[in-house]
Amino acid sequence: MSATLADIAANAGVSEATVSRVLNDRPGVSAAKRQAVLTALDLLGYERPARLRRRTGRPVGVILPEFTNPIYPAFAQALAPNFARRGFTPLVGSQADGGLHEEEYVEMFVEAGAAGIVFVSGAHADSTIPVARYQELRDLGLPLAFVNGFRTGIDAPFFSIDDRAAMVLAVRHLVAMGHTRLGLASGPETLVPSARKAEGFRAGVAEALGPKAEAFVVQSMVSDDGGLTAARALLAEGCTAIVCASDIIALGVLAEVRRQGLSVPDDVSVVGFDDSTVARHSWPPLTTVRQPVSTMSIAIADAFVGEMNNIYAQRSEYVYQPELVVRESSGSRKR
Amino acid sequence: MSATLADIAANAGVSEATVSRVLNDRPGVSAAKRQAVLTALDLLGYERPARLRRRTGRPVGVILPEFTNPIYPAFAQALAPNFARRGFTPLVGSQADGGLHEEEYVEMFVEAGAAGIVFVSGAHADSTIPVARYQELRDLGLPLAFVNGFRTGIDAPFFSIDDRAAMVLAVRHLVAMGHTRLGLASGPETLVPSARKAEGFRAGVAEALGPKAEAFVVQSMVSDDGGLTAARALLAEGCTAIVCASDIIALGVLAEVRRQGLSVPDDVSVVGFDDSTVARHSWPPLTTVRQPVSTMSIAIADAFVGEMNNIYAQRSEYVYQPELVVRESSGSRKR
Repeated sequence: MSATLADIAANAGVSEATVSRVLNDRPGVSAAKRQAVLTALDLLGYERPARLRRRTGRPVGVILPEFTNPIYPAFAQALAPNFARRGFTPLVGSQADGGLHEEEYVEMFVEAGAAGIVFVSGAHADSTIPVARYQELRDLGLPLAFVNGFRTGIDAPFFSIDDRAAMVLAVRHLVAMGHTRLGLASGPETLVPSARKAEGFRAGVAEALGPKAEAFVVQSMVSDDGGLTAARALLAEGCTAIVCASDIIALGVLAEVRRQGLSVPDDVSVVGFDDSTVARHSWPPLTTVRQPVSTMSIAIADAFVGEMNNIYAQRSEYVYQPELVVRESSGSRKR
Repeated sequence: MSATLADIAANAGVSEATVSRVLNDRPGVSAAKRQAVLTALDLLGYERPARLRRRTGRPVGVILPEFTNPIYPAFAQALAPNFARRGFTPLVGSQADGGLHEEEYVEMFVEAGAAGIVFVSGAHADSTIPVARYQELRDLGLPLAFVNGFRTGIDAPFFSIDDRAAMVLAVRHLVAMGHTRLGLASGPETLVPSARKAEGFRAGVAEALGPKAEAFVVQSMVSDDGGLTAARALLAEGCTAIVCASDIIALGVLAEVRRQGLSVPDDVSVVGFDDSTVARHSWPPLTTVRQPVSTMSIAIADAFVGEMNNIYAQRSEYVYQPELVVRESSGSRKR
C-alpha cells in the first residue's frame, strides 16, 4: 500500500500523510486537498473506499429560461454543488427556442421522481400567468423553490434580488457623477423583476433629482438586440446615462452607443445588472449591479432540504441585497 | 369562438385566419407564427387542442463539464430543441466544482430511465482515463454519443470539430498578415482536442513558415486565468500572434496583453476558438475559429434517434469543419 500511497500523493500533489487522512476520512484536510486525492484515486483507476463513495442523490429539477444569458447557467452552476453536498443531484432543463416548455420539464421531473423543483426566472415571474399550475404541483406534495419574480398564492419560498434597491444604487451612482438625464432599458413590464426595476428606477431618480426630474423607461427584450433598440430610443431622448435590467441588454446598449460614434463613458455611461460573466469581459468592462448568486444558491438548497424534512421556510420572499460593482463603463460626462 | 379567435390573434400579432390554421393543425403557417399562437393560447389560459399538446418525451441525459465556459451551455441550448423535436426531453448535468462527477450523473440518468446519454467534452476526452466505463454503459444497451475528444474502443458515434484544421486556419490567417512568431495557448495535452490542436498548430506553422520556424506551445488551464499565464510565457518568447484553444483562454490573453501596456491587434494579434457568445462581446471583438454547434447538434440528435431504432451511426468519428470568423483582434503588426 505504501507504493500506492506514494503514487496517489504524487498525482494529487499532496503528502502521503494527507492521502492517508483522506482515505481514512479523518479531519484536518482542506476540501481542495481532499478533492485532489479523490481525483487522483479516480485518475489512477482505484476504487474509492466505500465510505468515500458518494451515492447518487435524489434528483432535483432546476428549470432555467435559457442557457444563452450567462446569469442562468450561473445559477445552475452555483446550485449544483450546494445540492450535491446535501445529497441531491440537480438536473437542469432549459426552455430553449423551439425546445421545451416549463410544463414539459415539470412533467418530466415529476415522472423521474424528482425530490422537488427550483424555478429560476420561470413563467411564474410573468404576472399575467396564473399561479394555479404551481399550486397544483405543490398540492402533489412536491417541494418547490422560486428564484426571482415573486408571486403570492404559491405555498413555497421565493428568493429574490431586491430589484428596486438595485436600481436605486445605480441611479445614485450616476447622479453622483453629474448625470441628470437617466434612462432605463428594462425588460417587459409584465415580468415582476422588470416592473420592480422600473419602480425602483423612477423612485431613485425622484429621490436623487427631485420629483419633477424625468425618468425615461423603455421596455425591451432581454437580449443584446433588445439593448440596441432601447439605446436608440434613450439616446434620442438625450439620456447621458443608461441603466440596464440585464448585462445582456447592456452589451447591446454599448454596441449602439459605439455605432452612433459616441464613447463610453465619456459621452454616455452604461450600468448593467447581474454581474454575469460577460460584465467583466465587455469593453469597457461593465459597471453593474451584482446578484449574490452564491449566497442565494446556498439559501435555496438549505430551504429545500428543510422542505424535504417538513421544516418550512417562510411563505413569502427572501430578499437579497445587491451590490454595485464599479468598472469602466460609468463616469462623469466629459463632453 | 370568434371573440376568442380575435383575442388570440391580437395577443399573437397574427390574423384570425392564422390562428384558425394553427388550431386545426393545417399547413402554411411559419414555425414562428405557430409558436406565437401557441404562446398566446398559454398566456390567455386556454388549453391547447389535444393534437397540439406535446407529450413529454423520454429523457436524454446531456453531461457538460461546466456551465461557465459558454461553449458548453451553447451545446446544451442547441441540442435541446433538436432532441425535443424528435420526442426526447434533454436533462442537463454539469460537473461543477465541488459538485458531481460524470459517473454520478450517469448513474442518475440510468436510474431515471434515460433513453441514452450525450457526453460533451467529458472525461472521455482525457486520454489518460480508461474507456472501459463507457463501454460497460454501452453494454447495458444504452445509446451514447460523444462530442469532441475521440477515443477508440467505445461502441458509439463521436462528433468532433476538426481541431487540426482549426489551428491551420488560424495560423494561415496570421502568417498572411506578416506574423512569423506564433504561439499557441493550448489546453492540457492529455485532452485529445488539445493534443490535436497542438499538432495542427505545429503543422500549420511548418507549412506556412517552413520546417525550421519555431512554433511556441504553452499548456494552460481552460480559463481566463489560464490565458493570463499562457500569455505571459508566450509574450516573453516574443510572439506577436497568439492562438488560443478556447475563447475563454483568449479573454485572459487579451487581458494580459493590455496589462503589459501592449495593444491588440497593433502589437499582438489574438485568435480564439469556439466562437462562443463571449467572442463578439470582448474588446476588441475576437477573431476566432467557430465550432458549428448547430450542425453538430442536429447530427447528434439524428444519430441518437437512429441508435434507438437500431440504425447505427458509423463507429468512428464524424469530423466537422471549422470556419474562421475574422473580427478585430487580429491584424498586421503595426509597431
